[in-house]
Amino acid sequence: MKKQPVPYKIYLEEKEMPTHYYNVRADMKQKPAPLINPGTHQPMTAEELEHVFCTELVKQELDNDTPYIAIPDEIRSFYKMYRPSPLVRAYELERKLQTPAHIYYKFEGNNTSGSHKLNSAIAQAYYAKKQGLIGLTTETGAGQWGTALSMACAYLGMDLKVYMVKGSYHQKPFRREVMRTYGASVTPSPSDTTEVGRRILAAHPDTTGSLGCAISEAVEYAVTHEGYRYVLGSVLNQVLLHQSVIGLETKAAMDKYGIRPDIIIGCAGGGSNLGGLIAPFMGQKLRGEADYHIIAIEPASCPSFTRGKYAYDFCDTGMICPLAKMYTLGSDFIPSPNHAGGLRYHGMSPILSELYHQGLMEARSVEQTSVFEAAEYFARIEGILPAPESSHAIRVALDEAIRCKETGEEKTILFGLTGTGYFDLKAYEEYNDGTMTDYIPTDEELARSLAKLPKMD
Amino acid sequence: MKKQPVPYKIYLEEKEMPTHYYNVRADMKQKPAPLINPGTHQPMTAEELEHVFCTELVKQELDNDTPYIAIPDEIRSFYKMYRPSPLVRAYELERKLQTPAHIYYKFEGNNTSGSHKLNSAIAQAYYAKKQGLIGLTTETGAGQWGTALSMACAYLGMDLKVYMVKGSYHQKPFRREVMRTYGASVTPSPSDTTEVGRRILAAHPDTTGSLGCAISEAVEYAVTHEGYRYVLGSVLNQVLLHQSVIGLETKAAMDKYGIRPDIIIGCAGGGSNLGGLIAPFMGQKLRGEADYHIIAIEPASCPSFTRGKYAYDFCDTGMICPLAKMYTLGSDFIPSPNHAGGLRYHGMSPILSELYHQGLMEARSVEQTSVFEAAEYFARIEGILPAPESSHAIRVALDEAIRCKETGEEKTILFGLTGTGYFDLKAYEEYNDGTMTDYIPTDEELARSLAKLPKMD
Repeated sequence: MKKQPVPYKIYLEEKEMPTHYYNVRADMKQKPAPLINPGTHQPMTAEELEHVFCTELVKQELDNDTPYIAIPDEIRSFYKMYRPSPLVRAYELERKLQTPAHIYYKFEGNNTSGSHKLNSAIAQAYYAKKQGLIGLTTETGAGQWGTALSMACAYLGMDLKVYMVKGSYHQKPFRREVMRTYGASVTPSPSDTTEVGRRILAAHPDTTGSLGCAISEAVEYAVTHEGYRYVLGSVLNQVLLHQSVIGLETKAAMDKYGIRPDIIIGCAGGGSNLGGLIAPFMGQKLRGEADYHIIAIEPASCPSFTRGKYAYDFCDTGMICPLAKMYTLGSDFIPSPNHAGGLRYHGMSPILSELYHQGLMEARSVEQTSVFEAAEYFARIEGILPAPESSHAIRVALDEAIRCKETGEEKTILFGLTGTGYFDLKAYEEYNDGTMTDYIPTDEELARSLAKLPKMD
Repeated sequence: MKKQPVPYKIYLEEKEMPTHYYNVRADMKQKPAPLINPGTHQPMTAEELEHVFCTELVKQELDNDTPYIAIPDEIRSFYKMYRPSPLVRAYELERKLQTPAHIYYKFEGNNTSGSHKLNSAIAQAYYAKKQGLIGLTTETGAGQWGTALSMACAYLGMDLKVYMVKGSYHQKPFRREVMRTYGASVTPSPSDTTEVGRRILAAHPDTTGSLGCAISEAVEYAVTHEGYRYVLGSVLNQVLLHQSVIGLETKAAMDKYGIRPDIIIGCAGGGSNLGGLIAPFMGQKLRGEADYHIIAIEPASCPSFTRGKYAYDFCDTGMICPLAKMYTLGSDFIPSPNHAGGLRYHGMSPILSELYHQGLMEARSVEQTSVFEAAEYFARIEGILPAPESSHAIRVALDEAIRCKETGEEKTILFGLTGTGYFDLKAYEEYNDGTMTDYIPTDEELARSLAKLPKMD
């Protein structure tokens, strides 16, 4: 293919946007392990899952075979308001680093939710609306997912109840106000609106809450109110399916200019961004059509891939959700209070866990201060102030580009820039003030939480 | 011309981006009035202006004749990192409003500074760097201009001193941290780093500062330090020149699809956004090639066009800068503490003032709560959370689209969406809580500040 000069930003045309989600499970010989009912230890049936999730999403959650699933027109219309997202050639970064590497990033931050979360939020809200449901419930910690879902629900005219960890509710009033502006009702958790919330408040009146508790409240509200369902922003198979639009757009843009990445890098918390970015590339790899060096980056403070165990575990700290087989640190592992809220999950997407287990990708962990060093460097050169989560990927992209400078290799590096750091300035302030610290859990700490994994027969 | 279907977002290709700024003064028969030396009442000479501004920018400030001025490659490289900005067709808004109008907006918020300010910041920093200067000084209130200039200076490796109004410094720590992340030194004003700051502090130790005082400190620092110059983010002719990229991109994108706006709407504080957006359209109008209905929107609380006087006045409250002939409310007019920080200037760009004076554009003022009502409506439908400033234009675009619905006219409405409201959530909180108020200055108040206009011979 004759190569055209690559512009700073490649925008697909609207008509080149994906018409189908890509389901990487269809190309996996060994499928990800099914969700398990914690009572019976049997795989969750569609019927059981439909108490919590809407019908179409349950179908997507369980579908290990269909490779391409059509994106409904209504979802595509919404996507057209903020997608295609740009694939950026980091010319300025390359020049500054004096590296022979070619660096690309797929930037998902140019929307008000500030991250890729919106891609799945609109899909989940759409299917729920189509089923005739009137509202959704969810939990939010840092607030990215809650914001994305608020935007989707506002667009579709659906009600939304967000349980926001009480500490965040008061410390992050701006995220809360974005959600309120989009019409969501935001309740600090624990609250007196649920059984479980009242129980916790009675026992710990001064608690600032936890994600586990907020999940439990959101689920309770959904299962006890007609016309409501609970939705989740990462980890699940359905979420990775929706996020495949990231990778599909990236691959289409690269193909258009005859670019082939050697290394693909993404940050991984629950895994939705990385799973979405790598989907079509991993598909090629699984089908034996191409090979890519894929690297998942996680915080050293919450190292599920690099120091966790591949085992069945609870998805929530409240232990009311199904069991998933995944790389996990144990459902009561408490990561240090680092600033990458989206990477503080104890487990990892079952799909990515299985792919990693099969040796199809690498994983690395990086420390917080080196992540912010990379973030600041990147911001000053490329202009964009990155989210702390995304900056994990930036750190390793810089490391790899510097290695190319040393070896003289002209590798093509692709990374996912999942979002912006506009609501993370408290973290930047700590970094600017030199008061940011690193934290790595000890082996003893990890052994303690891993010892509590549920016993499977 | 055969019309192609218009996508949700029109992105020009990189090679279609403007290569020249357009200087609307070249097409004005009656030129804007020159800046005047407040001591001699004579037009400011280049030599006088060069104490404060760098040489090339003084040239641009005084150039009333050259229609097209080449954009240097280095500036174009920077633009390519965040431009072209999208011209958005608001299909969803049209559908929701059930209006026959076609609504377009040029969205300048997809960069970390969050607004169009970056277009002039990089140009001003570039020319200063090229002249061998080592640093710049400026003032900032809400922080948008300071952020933009920090990004530009970080990219070029220039030093930057920002004097930030003390009240904002403490109340808007996030804006401050963005600037620090980009390497700027941010000083709360008044400070003990300048003569004027020390004087004010001695007299009013508890003051929270003012924009006027911050300007005075920034100017003093620049004129008393070798290798420094002062820069300003709006009002000046040079700034409108740089901002013409907004309008040039808009017109190129519209021409590509055979679109011709009937109504062009922009918010106006100092006038840089509106002046930039309308530049090429106004050029056609001045040359008699086309006609457009152009509307400037200002807050009812700071109504320089609609209730001010066209006269020579000081540009700063400290009365140390040159006099400009402009629509003004008087340099000691204190607008109410409304939330559109970028629209709280007592005067208006001399270029726009002259164009308005000639009857080439209309002006309207709108009240704060109706602006936020429009902002929320827009956010929920189009996804983007708009800046309070930009929402003034949204308000009138909605009004015009609703009028089209009533009359059945299929008008094409274009407005400038200058930025995002991610750092204005305090304002949204007030609106969400129902505690937002409107404020309109009384005739007596205006008469009092207008009575203090400098006497000209």
